[in-house]
Amino acid sequence: MHSDRRLAWLALLGEETARGATPFQIAADELRLGRERLCLRMPVSLCLKGEEEGYAIMPADGGYLISGNASGLLYGTYRLMMKLAAGLNPQCDFTRPAYALRMLNHWDNMDGMVERGYAGDSLFFSKGRFRNDWPRLTQYARLLASVGINAVCVNNVNVRPPADRLITRDWLPDLARLADLLRAYGIRLMVAADFALPHSAGIGTADPLDPAVQRWWQKRAEEIYGLIPDFGGVVIKADSEFRPGPHTYGRSHSQGANMLARAFRPHGGYVIWRCFVYNCKQDWRDHAIDRPKAAFEQYAPMDGTFDAHVILQIKNGPYDFQTREPVSPLLYAMPNTEKALELQLAQEYTGQQIDLYYMPPMWQEITRDLLPFKPRHICAVSNLGRDDNWTGHDLAQANLFSYGLFAWRGQTADDDADWWIRLSYGSNPVVLSTLRAMLLRSRAVYESYTAPLALGWMVHPDSHYGPNPEGYEYDKWGTYLRTDGRAVGIDRSSRGTGFTLQYPEALRRRYDSPHTCPQELLLFFHRLPFDHVLPDGRTLIQYIYDTRFEGALGAEALLRDWESLEGLIPEESFRHTRERFVRQLQNACEWRDVLNNYFWRFSGIPDERGRRIY
Amino acid sequence: MHSDRRLAWLALLGEETARGATPFQIAADELRLGRERLCLRMPVSLCLKGEEEGYAIMPADGGYLISGNASGLLYGTYRLMMKLAAGLNPQCDFTRPAYALRMLNHWDNMDGMVERGYAGDSLFFSKGRFRNDWPRLTQYARLLASVGINAVCVNNVNVRPPADRLITRDWLPDLARLADLLRAYGIRLMVAADFALPHSAGIGTADPLDPAVQRWWQKRAEEIYGLIPDFGGVVIKADSEFRPGPHTYGRSHSQGANMLARAFRPHGGYVIWRCFVYNCKQDWRDHAIDRPKAAFEQYAPMDGTFDAHVILQIKNGPYDFQTREPVSPLLYAMPNTEKALELQLAQEYTGQQIDLYYMPPMWQEITRDLLPFKPRHICAVSNLGRDDNWTGHDLAQANLFSYGLFAWRGQTADDDADWWIRLSYGSNPVVLSTLRAMLLRSRAVYESYTAPLALGWMVHPDSHYGPNPEGYEYDKWGTYLRTDGRAVGIDRSSRGTGFTLQYPEALRRRYDSPHTCPQELLLFFHRLPFDHVLPDGRTLIQYIYDTRFEGALGAEALLRDWESLEGLIPEESFRHTRERFVRQLQNACEWRDVLNNYFWRFSGIPDERGRRIY
Repeated sequence: MHSDRRLAWLALLGEETARGATPFQIAADELRLGRERLCLRMPVSLCLKGEEEGYAIMPADGGYLISGNASGLLYGTYRLMMKLAAGLNPQCDFTRPAYALRMLNHWDNMDGMVERGYAGDSLFFSKGRFRNDWPRLTQYARLLASVGINAVCVNNVNVRPPADRLITRDWLPDLARLADLLRAYGIRLMVAADFALPHSAGIGTADPLDPAVQRWWQKRAEEIYGLIPDFGGVVIKADSEFRPGPHTYGRSHSQGANMLARAFRPHGGYVIWRCFVYNCKQDWRDHAIDRPKAAFEQYAPMDGTFDAHVILQIKNGPYDFQTREPVSPLLYAMPNTEKALELQLAQEYTGQQIDLYYMPPMWQEITRDLLPFKPRHICAVSNLGRDDNWTGHDLAQANLFSYGLFAWRGQTADDDADWWIRLSYGSNPVVLSTLRAMLLRSRAVYESYTAPLALGWMVHPDSHYGPNPEGYEYDKWGTYLRTDGRAVGIDRSSRGTGFTLQYPEALRRRYDSPHTCPQELLLFFHRLPFDHVLPDGRTLIQYIYDTRFEGALGAEALLRDWESLEGLIPEESFRHTRERFVRQLQNACEWRDVLNNYFWRFSGIPDERGRRIY
Repeated sequence: MHSDRRLAWLALLGEETARGATPFQIAADELRLGRERLCLRMPVSLCLKGEEEGYAIMPADGGYLISGNASGLLYGTYRLMMKLAAGLNPQCDFTRPAYALRMLNHWDNMDGMVERGYAGDSLFFSKGRFRNDWPRLTQYARLLASVGINAVCVNNVNVRPPADRLITRDWLPDLARLADLLRAYGIRLMVAADFALPHSAGIGTADPLDPAVQRWWQKRAEEIYGLIPDFGGVVIKADSEFRPGPHTYGRSHSQGANMLARAFRPHGGYVIWRCFVYNCKQDWRDHAIDRPKAAFEQYAPMDGTFDAHVILQIKNGPYDFQTREPVSPLLYAMPNTEKALELQLAQEYTGQQIDLYYMPPMWQEITRDLLPFKPRHICAVSNLGRDDNWTGHDLAQANLFSYGLFAWRGQTADDDADWWIRLSYGSNPVVLSTLRAMLLRSRAVYESYTAPLALGWMVHPDSHYGPNPEGYEYDKWGTYLRTDGRAVGIDRSSRGTGFTLQYPEALRRRYDSPHTCPQELLLFFHRLPFDHVLPDGRTLIQYIYDTRFEGALGAEALLRDWESLEGLIPEESFRHTRERFVRQLQNACEWRDVLNNYFWRFSGIPDERGRRIY
């Protein structure tokens, strides 16, 4: 990591940023800056071509020719310079993006706090107002554009005052200034909106079938597009976790979403409608409700009823960004509906940017499982904040970097880690091979001490960090494991809650039997006795013990590997990141000891290998 | 409850309060007001006699003669009127108080919040300042005096800015005005102080052996007593739960406390030194530390080293105001040290003034167990706030009322409940017998669904309300039950952690064996298998199930009994209190179902009687 951690993987370009009001101008000026910084002598030409998003880099005249539409040229320019700076071949096979909207969702509140943020305060807001830190925001836009992100929603989907007024005249001038900056980097601005706003704004209702409500939204859209001609649209969390929505007025989700789409579509805007809807007041006694089934039950029957500019935003798993979940069955359904896959870069359940968790291996599995059903759009909850290094953990920058590449290509590549390491820490082969190995195994390490076999939700309520095996057992969130002296888990097969029936037939069959179910998902789909024998001959309980002991050793190895880089990594990054690995090791030991003690107390079965269970 | 619930048991005296600056003047004027309100024609004389606290009421001249010192006359006056209003005989056997200081500790923060308060905002503070609501404060002083309370500490023992400055010139004028009011009602004002204040106030240290620190405290005492000549002294929570104390400076508790006593004693003030000291950063893996042993280990060896004006304030149990605990062994020790028994009227672990919990049966047991070791002073954490009815639950007023009587007499009387009911709800025999029975069984009901066999700490962390059986199992507070598939509890016998060795020999023997240990304390002292057979032939697990089913039925019966009083109880009190009983029943059902499910999951043993365990 270079001396100024704010430059992240763009240290090659230095602190000075490009001037310009359009992606083409920015591309041209970044090229000028980059050529100076990188001492490039070869000619590079930009050839603006077509309207469709995309770019190509071709050798020409002893240098390179980048061709593409305006934003494509910007992406190509960054790619060329980043590849050259890393000593890699800049040509690319992926000239067109795999996902149309490649979005980042910020869960920033206007008071400056970021919900589930682990990297400091909001980049956008402070004390109820826009922060307007233009130098920082310009670096932010540059980072995003450098990896091809083309849309951002800047405020929390849990919209609370004063953020509910963001799309009213109160805040439009501020929004417009921010949109101007983002536009230059090819990024469309979106805002999370409060479905009930017409009600509180004086109409007295937010019923989507009420003409006054419809006119009110049309008026808002006209106002917004008067100032922000490329406004991306609104993100809505409706009828979910105490947020208002069309159900409040006895209307369906498509009635609610379509009404908004009719206001925004004429201007080119979208309505991103979150499908994170479930009964958040469940009684733990009730075995009939199974939360992972909720989104499918709610939305699948509505396929075909949504406006073309309504995009259903669906979390990758059916629960809520747990360490390990199957792909949400809703992503396989609704062929006649626009969908966006929602990922979470913010490491809410995956180590909170204290523990290392490099995400592309997870995304690659999702892609593999989802292939023919790939939605048209993608978005991810941001892991960014005003910390010097943007992401709390220096190495968590790699997740944002890789997300951008993944969203463009529709698949991950192990090389991405290499590329990021070279740009951030240089090309020393020891650093390269050590960090690459650390990143690529980090997910398996984290999973092994927190959630082997997809045992989720054993975290502290509220904070979602650290072990609390019964923390959610009697709560209202529908997150039960029902451990007893014999067994653990919920039977979600077709003989149990029937959750597997929501999948296409081939997947249903695979998940339905503990013998064909992928081992890493075993306790997501099945309730199994502790003495259930796994394919390698180990019992379930022994596997739980083994993985937790191994997980803590894995965290220790990450710390040791990092420490082996002392002197090869800039001092500040080394020290700061070492402290994270120390905390990760403490966390891993706590997980190992608490969970092993927990399962030992229930099962009474000792560890075969006689290791210490407290 | 009369129409104005603020008058509580003094409704007989009406809203108008007495005028006067001394207890004698107040007594005389209250007598005048009371005679008018009660239409008393008989003569009542007040005879000021002696300095020692006490009073007697004797028949004289066809009326009554009240004799005593100034505050005694006030107590006698209230007693006479309260007894007559209730239709009871006003004479009393207890002419001298059993406890010298009869104190109320408020845990009020200056922002207006009450820590562990369940009755609204602070009576004293709001938004960082004194509230100075004199009419309400006068009613408050009157209520306390009417039951003989003679000292109050107005701020939280967890002293946080700006409350740390209460005893500095910043706030002394406000304090003095409050002390003037309280003095007229025979109540001495005390303040919880920050041991480290000299440090933050500019001395640079709070080392009790530093002469500059000693002078600083002497100066403070002089300033205070210049304005408040009867100031009661300071309450200190030192070296406990992150509060500073003498240990910060390598000094002992007696060195710290005695230094303060040397500043306050010359003026007649006391230093109330809390003994709630334990390791609050315990590792759950550590079986060697046993929190209930902490206070004894800390203080018992220091017997005889404390100044005569240092009073060690000791919670009734060795843990922390759990539903059921044995008497703290420290209360049996330290014969050469002044002690105060600390009770908690605030229902932190006993239902939070939502569930009914009438405390005198608990106090009577403590008195019985402690008899020859009774300390000289008593105090109780207040259950008061600015709610209309002072205590959140109308019936929780009875705890404050009975506490005053108990602190005077040194024992409780079942009649106290009667007396309070008559004063609050009149003398309808149905109301009287129903409410008396409800109050007197309320503790047993609450205990049976929350903590049979002294199973404590199974509450929600932080809130301390509602069931969370493993909520504290892996926390740092030293509160573990270590349930497994076979057994539950901690062996605190002399063969276990050795906690019983802190008791006098006869008690040690009694507690040491599960066969002689009182059943209600069984799992406080012993770890026992689920199939352990109790004297009545039931197994431990069956007893746990039975009590929890019975507890929920008990809560239902309380609601039904209350509802049977509709029309006999003033409408507002009926409605408000009914809502509490409904919530209590929900709480009891949640306790029943969660805890039964929890123990069933561990033990695998079904309920013998086949009742529903979820």
